[in-house]
Amino acid sequence: MDQVAEKKGVCVPTFKDLGEFGFIDRIARHGLVREEGVLCGIGDDCAVFELGEERALLVTADLMVEEVHFRVAGTALEGLGYKLLAVNLSDVAAMGGEPRDAVVSAAIPADFDAEYMERVYNGLHTCASRFGVNVAGGDTTRSPGPLVLNLTLTGEMARDRVRYRSGARPGDLVYVSGTLGDSAAGLKLALGEDVGISEEDRAFLLRRHHRPEPRVALGQALAATGAVTAMIDLSDGAASDLRHVCRQSGVGAVVAADAVPLSPALRAFCEATQTDPLCPALSGGEDYELLFTVDPERVRALKAWEALPAVCPVGRIEAGEARIFLEGVEGGRKVLEGAGFDHFKAGCGEL
Amino acid sequence: MDQVAEKKGVCVPTFKDLGEFGFIDRIARHGLVREEGVLCGIGDDCAVFELGEERALLVTADLMVEEVHFRVAGTALEGLGYKLLAVNLSDVAAMGGEPRDAVVSAAIPADFDAEYMERVYNGLHTCASRFGVNVAGGDTTRSPGPLVLNLTLTGEMARDRVRYRSGARPGDLVYVSGTLGDSAAGLKLALGEDVGISEEDRAFLLRRHHRPEPRVALGQALAATGAVTAMIDLSDGAASDLRHVCRQSGVGAVVAADAVPLSPALRAFCEATQTDPLCPALSGGEDYELLFTVDPERVRALKAWEALPAVCPVGRIEAGEARIFLEGVEGGRKVLEGAGFDHFKAGCGEL
Repeated sequence: MDQVAEKKGVCVPTFKDLGEFGFIDRIARHGLVREEGVLCGIGDDCAVFELGEERALLVTADLMVEEVHFRVAGTALEGLGYKLLAVNLSDVAAMGGEPRDAVVSAAIPADFDAEYMERVYNGLHTCASRFGVNVAGGDTTRSPGPLVLNLTLTGEMARDRVRYRSGARPGDLVYVSGTLGDSAAGLKLALGEDVGISEEDRAFLLRRHHRPEPRVALGQALAATGAVTAMIDLSDGAASDLRHVCRQSGVGAVVAADAVPLSPALRAFCEATQTDPLCPALSGGEDYELLFTVDPERVRALKAWEALPAVCPVGRIEAGEARIFLEGVEGGRKVLEGAGFDHFKAGCGEL
Repeated sequence: MDQVAEKKGVCVPTFKDLGEFGFIDRIARHGLVREEGVLCGIGDDCAVFELGEERALLVTADLMVEEVHFRVAGTALEGLGYKLLAVNLSDVAAMGGEPRDAVVSAAIPADFDAEYMERVYNGLHTCASRFGVNVAGGDTTRSPGPLVLNLTLTGEMARDRVRYRSGARPGDLVYVSGTLGDSAAGLKLALGEDVGISEEDRAFLLRRHHRPEPRVALGQALAATGAVTAMIDLSDGAASDLRHVCRQSGVGAVVAADAVPLSPALRAFCEATQTDPLCPALSGGEDYELLFTVDPERVRALKAWEALPAVCPVGRIEAGEARIFLEGVEGGRKVLEGAGFDHFKAGCGEL
């Protein structure tokens, strides 16, 4: 085993250079040790493993790091715990699965108040109760720096219903749930941006940021329709997440600018700040809505399904390179270049 | 949701005050959201869930934090990756399980060389290949401070063979595998302590610290004998880990000082440093051997099992409080007070 080499004169890429996705590409090359029992390794919302003859086990993990994902001073700690589980639930929702059990690891600064940490766990348990998830075991250790939390969540579902990112085909319709961009605006408000909007709009946007609503029931319902060909949750921003679907399906996509669902609160926020709501809607992270593609011949299955909450079509899948076009801006098509939210680079990618 | 309160004049315990185990006790009070399907929640080496009719799913997680568990400058990064998986394999071994799949989360400083991180993954994959574990998915994000790695490992086994910490009964014999205390001595060498011992002894102790050998096959074999009543892996130090077994089984234990297995390398180290080898053997962490209790009437099942690697009896379980006595020191019995290794407190607890 080599010791860590001194930094040489040659150009060694850092994580900032590679970015999160560049790094994931690099480590994905290692491949799997054994194919047996693995339905999906790296590169989807969850890893998927065989479970008996007909079921699948889902496993997903999400980290939350102080100063990257939150600041202790300005954060409601119950909300932090709630969100830690909610973002993982969103990953299970994106496969169409039923969440099962969570394991939490925490690296905690030695001078951190135990009471603060109990608030984090209270919020976690509030979310766990709502979604019927057990919080079991885990690991706790000291951190010499930031508070770092990791939650690993398992899920379960019928194997033939699992929806992957890789199933989109040319001609499929692209749908999203809810409204987009609210969380990015909520983050700006949480960071103290002074915006002249109503208290109601402010509360809505903050809540969309701090208390994302994982679409667990919706994901299961969509997977059950048989009409959905690919699915992903919106964590990095719709453009970036749609690009993941396109890359893994070997297709392109076009999004209609005027079809992107925007909340009245986001419209008010963007009017007050004189910004384009399509920026947070397409490149803002942490919406935790679902984006999915639908076989156009089976779209009635979707429409007939009355219990589905608000979902709407925003575009379609096309043959070709994994590029996303935005249609209806300045009368034509433009390529969406934004990388979405990447924690190693800038906050919100530009449109 | 409350914002974080200003620190008041009252005494609020910090993590340093409570310690790792005090904190775990506090959060364990939250209990489970639903009992259904959970065989063991918090408080064993793995969480254990029902898997179909007769199988059990094991889930365990371990964190490794820069400046707490390792230093990048003095660490062979392949070894770090190897150990990250090995310590989790040790938890699955302690239940008697067969390891399955791993999910890794990493919070990485932005200026960290991508090449360094690939070395970590190379070591991880070396260990994964040896033990037939798949490394799937996970989460990668930036850290504003230390490198933080979390690995969550799943395992599987027959439900009726799972060995818990809680099964020890008065009269049971206490066994350990391998030799104890080598890792603690190896850590001192790794931190630069200059000790006059042979190169061979030095290499052995360093290897025991950097490349722990998870007793996966042994754990499975022990669980299959039907003679083992409780099992735990030695991560915090034998005294502390035996105390976990005692607390959860509602029993006490006595350890015979002259039965504790010591390697010739540790004896040489302690001779050279004029220290008592029982200190690292009983209170040093990270041996990753197995400690288990055996029904005395079935101990022949253990002895007859030829394929078992070196295991030896070190004491016995007694009725009474969850205290550990050390026998044969200065002619009598003394209570073992040491808390073992606690990352929130001192390094190696005193004897």
